[in-house]
Amino acid sequence: MGGDFGPRCIIPAVAHSLRLLPELDVILVGSPEPLQQLCSEYPLPADRVRFVYTSEIILADDSPASVLRSKRDASMRVAIEQVRDGLADGCLSAGNTGALMVLARSILGTLDGIQRPAIMAALPVSAKGCYLLDMGANVDCSAKQLFEFAVMGSEAVTELTGMQKPRIGLLNIGSETHKGSRQVREVSEMLRGCSDLNYIGHIEGDGLFQDQADVVVCDGFVGNVVLKASEGLAGYLQNEIRRALHSNLLLRLIAPVLRSVLRPVRERHDPGRYNGASLLGLRGVVVKSHGGANQQAFEAAIAQAMLASQARLPERIARRLALCRSDAS
Amino acid sequence: MGGDFGPRCIIPAVAHSLRLLPELDVILVGSPEPLQQLCSEYPLPADRVRFVYTSEIILADDSPASVLRSKRDASMRVAIEQVRDGLADGCLSAGNTGALMVLARSILGTLDGIQRPAIMAALPVSAKGCYLLDMGANVDCSAKQLFEFAVMGSEAVTELTGMQKPRIGLLNIGSETHKGSRQVREVSEMLRGCSDLNYIGHIEGDGLFQDQADVVVCDGFVGNVVLKASEGLAGYLQNEIRRALHSNLLLRLIAPVLRSVLRPVRERHDPGRYNGASLLGLRGVVVKSHGGANQQAFEAAIAQAMLASQARLPERIARRLALCRSDAS
Repeated sequence: MGGDFGPRCIIPAVAHSLRLLPELDVILVGSPEPLQQLCSEYPLPADRVRFVYTSEIILADDSPASVLRSKRDASMRVAIEQVRDGLADGCLSAGNTGALMVLARSILGTLDGIQRPAIMAALPVSAKGCYLLDMGANVDCSAKQLFEFAVMGSEAVTELTGMQKPRIGLLNIGSETHKGSRQVREVSEMLRGCSDLNYIGHIEGDGLFQDQADVVVCDGFVGNVVLKASEGLAGYLQNEIRRALHSNLLLRLIAPVLRSVLRPVRERHDPGRYNGASLLGLRGVVVKSHGGANQQAFEAAIAQAMLASQARLPERIARRLALCRSDAS
Repeated sequence: MGGDFGPRCIIPAVAHSLRLLPELDVILVGSPEPLQQLCSEYPLPADRVRFVYTSEIILADDSPASVLRSKRDASMRVAIEQVRDGLADGCLSAGNTGALMVLARSILGTLDGIQRPAIMAALPVSAKGCYLLDMGANVDCSAKQLFEFAVMGSEAVTELTGMQKPRIGLLNIGSETHKGSRQVREVSEMLRGCSDLNYIGHIEGDGLFQDQADVVVCDGFVGNVVLKASEGLAGYLQNEIRRALHSNLLLRLIAPVLRSVLRPVRERHDPGRYNGASLLGLRGVVVKSHGGANQQAFEAAIAQAMLASQARLPERIARRLALCRSDAS
């Protein structure tokens, strides 16, 4: 029940999703007051919704270390415990990302050989959606970790989008094989050796926006910087263009036309539309919603968590990792 | 005389710059034929221009290692030798970046304690111009290198723009001091300890486009990916907007108005406008022009090389490095 808008955005999204998705059941974990109040405004089908009331909340500035030690009755922790105990098939949260990472890792555990989960999300810019991982969970990555990101990303994108054999690219500073950091050169060899993956080679920064690959692998430092830079630049440029259009009298007169023509572009690149970052490598489904997600965006994250749960994504990833590791070695 | 357009773009830029900048003298290094032909079209003042004819050219796909060994009479090598021999105050090239790096390092040498020069350039997006370094010369950077980038960038931006005490930011994945890679956390301490620098702390990816800092420091892998991703995204978004505007009949009728209103935005973010990447840390001034630079863009790079030469930027950087190193230790 976290995020900038909390239950006020989440409950309408849940109500709408329950109408759209007949296979969805929901467990709402949080403080009783806002939940009961909102559920009287948006009546939910009693047979498909269960409430678990909690007394504590993890805040945006709680440090990951502190949430591990304290706040035993925080809604985020209790929601993850529902997954661990087999009472839920997946967990979705719009709260503190760092806290979600450490709690999920500590409560659910990671798959064999995985030290930390990776965060995968779609860049909110390309027409088709280009998935990038890691988005910031793993700052210094070994070649082995980058290889695992490729395998996990390939499996997850197949299950979430239905795309068979997604094209896997490795983010680098040149398309030539001798370029890049030691880790990147090393993982490139490993990926080339794995026949199970549709590895297409190096992708440069501009290639992220040119539909060159479906899944792009990089360390969490680079992924996080690229994601935020993209959001910052897209916002800046759209503002600049809006201001320029508004500076002209004729264009101000036809502002409604301009707005209606440009709205689809803005919406197509709305971070909310690509909402839902998957934490991959855990023994359970955990999806992170953007803190600033609106109702529509939160619904996208609900659908993503449902798809990942139905596909039993963690088990699939575990099998695929075992297969690819033996293939590459 | 390299780059996509070669002398055909460079000679008119030189002719125009010589008219604008009374203190500029130029040495043109390259093959005789196109130079003589073009200089008959664009007469240059004989007392301010000298020709050095060469017989070889470094190609875009020549490997840096191979240009070190061969092509002794390549225009790029000879131009750098002019700087080494005191015959020129600085070198400007639009050719192969990797080749320029290794030749400059081998012929001019680096400043005390600097292993490889760093490449600094302005991001072609923010209104004011945010300088980023390194842009790709140094892939795996130590904290010491990142510290040196901050010092060199601070001095260079002061000399190139006249800005006193430019704000130095460190690119990171969170604004908190405990976040980021080991190198980033370590250099953050060093920068905080250096009173001579206007260090303002961590900058996240979106902060690059929000006028938070004048110089932003990162390793060459991150810098290169961010620069190319920014160029790719800006191009993609502007295309999307152009297509949307063109899809509407009314807007097609007033296309000239739209074009005139949007042209300043496009021009303000034209990579050419911010042309001129400085190679910092060398014992001489070397500036790299974008390969695709047009005449106006090449003139910007000429002006930058002249400013750096007049300021004796390498000596200034050497003094500043000595000062800051003792300050931080």
